[in-house]
Amino acid sequence: MQINTMEAIEILGTISFAISGSFAAMQKRLDPFGVLIIAFVTSVGGGTVRDLLLGDTPVAWMRDVNYCLLILLTSIATIFFKTHIKKFKVTLFLFDSLGLGLFTILGIQKGIVFGLSPGICIALGTITGCFGGIIRDTFLNTIPLIFRKEVYATVCIMGGILYFSLLYFNLKEDLAKVVVIAFIFAFRIVVVRYKLTLPKFGY
Amino acid sequence: MQINTMEAIEILGTISFAISGSFAAMQKRLDPFGVLIIAFVTSVGGGTVRDLLLGDTPVAWMRDVNYCLLILLTSIATIFFKTHIKKFKVTLFLFDSLGLGLFTILGIQKGIVFGLSPGICIALGTITGCFGGIIRDTFLNTIPLIFRKEVYATVCIMGGILYFSLLYFNLKEDLAKVVVIAFIFAFRIVVVRYKLTLPKFGY
Amino acid sequence: MQINTMEAIEILGTISFAISGSFAAMQKRLDPFGVLIIAFVTSVGGGTVRDLLLGDTPVAWMRDVNYCLLILLTSIATIFFKTHIKKFKVTLFLFDSLGLGLFTILGIQKGIVFGLSPGICIALGTITGCFGGIIRDTFLNTIPLIFRKEVYATVCIMGGILYFSLLYFNLKEDLAKVVVIAFIFAFRIVVVRYKLTLPKFGY
Repeated sequence: MQINTMEAIEILGTISFAISGSFAAMQKRLDPFGVLIIAFVTSVGGGTVRDLLLGDTPVAWMRDVNYCLLILLTSIATIFFKTHIKKFKVTLFLFDSLGLGLFTILGIQKGIVFGLSPGICIALGTITGCFGGIIRDTFLNTIPLIFRKEVYATVCIMGGILYFSLLYFNLKEDLAKVVVIAFIFAFRIVVVRYKLTLPKFGY
Repeated sequence: MQINTMEAIEILGTISFAISGSFAAMQKRLDPFGVLIIAFVTSVGGGTVRDLLLGDTPVAWMRDVNYCLLILLTSIATIFFKTHIKKFKVTLFLFDSLGLGLFTILGIQKGIVFGLSPGICIALGTITGCFGGIIRDTFLNTIPLIFRKEVYATVCIMGGILYFSLLYFNLKEDLAKVVVIAFIFAFRIVVVRYKLTLPKFGY
Repeated sequence: MQINTMEAIEILGTISFAISGSFAAMQKRLDPFGVLIIAFVTSVGGGTVRDLLLGDTPVAWMRDVNYCLLILLTSIATIFFKTHIKKFKVTLFLFDSLGLGLFTILGIQKGIVFGLSPGICIALGTITGCFGGIIRDTFLNTIPLIFRKEVYATVCIMGGILYFSLLYFNLKEDLAKVVVIAFIFAFRIVVVRYKLTLPKFGY
């Protein structure tokens, strides 16, 4: 997998996370600054929590101002063109799923670089993919969606397990990445398409 | 106090924190993944915030995969055997109180190792004991219980003050630890038994 | 600008942040410990998040126990003399605005020391000024005020842009600081006096 493809996926993922954050914030009738912050937190939250837990500071987004600009522009565009953007709901969902796959892999990789065990690496991948949404929902004063509905994190965890299984069977690392991103992408689409959820438990 | 006893207390404390997190999450009707995350956050939240504030990264639970497995298994067991586990309410409360004492001492010790002043060490001990529950309640979208009811943190703070007083009067460190853990354990039980709360203040 | 003036502003700012936190907590009928924690988090939250993101640990308040004592005493005084303190609403608001200006500058400066780009430095300044209130509101289970009303963060961002503009035009650093603190102070007062808010966006 070439760097360029990876980067393109990261940009598409970031944009779709920022748009999802902006819409969630507008729904709660925040002012434009609030919308911006929620967009930002949704996009960079996962990677930031991962970097904090690892002690890899200053955290990633501080070292790349372009990344911040991208989120800023996406958020402003979402505020102004919200009716247009809503029409691309399906496209955005596809970007989001692609981004989820990539972010999971990025988190896992970072854990490997830090010499952590596979279980912890999978946790880091899941945190990278999911924590942005958790912080977004916490700030917006709702129980994080991910804890209640949609098998979002489960998809990341299964992708992570698949990744280490593939490496265990000596698959080339780059190929394993592509397979896992494709797996998370496809699995997420199936889950949402057929409205699969985990069973809930009452007290 | 032998290492083995300390470790046993830590394991019992971790288990009881994980169970309390699982029950709180099931009460809010989260899906199994949500229950797991809340159990995890309740157990490791305090130590994680402490390590982040100190800059001691990667944070503790990342370096010990057994710890994570313990929480995972506890959480799964709680989901499946919830009716059975509820019968051990009193036992769990005792473990929880014991864990609170130990976690407070662990936080204080870490502060001492980092050369911080007693007041800050006590704050670290209290954070280690209490922040797991604060994050749990924040994610579950309620005002943290600890801010409203039950003299949870007060017990930690008083235990911390006692610890430094004992050291000041040249008590052997290991003995001081045992005394403080016993004090927090006993004090907490008295507080809950007699429904003591701090007076509340209106605006 | 002399160190003494800066320090005096920092102390006044800290006190007014602690008082605002205490009142918000009492309004939600927390117990005294809860009031204390919310006061603490409101005061040190912004600087703590900044230090964590930068990896400058142990975070600032751990290295200065006087700072913690100041917040503790302020919080206790607020609990006991709340009716008196409310009479100084205007004075407190002025301190708060002055503190906001200073905290923003402190955050920007720290970013510069870490060699970060101006955009990121402004973000750090805004985080230092605003995140205490965001954490306060999150713990108190409301959508952070700053996301919904009052152009709080916007004032920080504009102050930050002004600061780098002044440096760009070769203004002496110390003078630039005074100008920016005065600008944030004055701008905030105008905003609140004339009830200016950013327009809101529905979904």
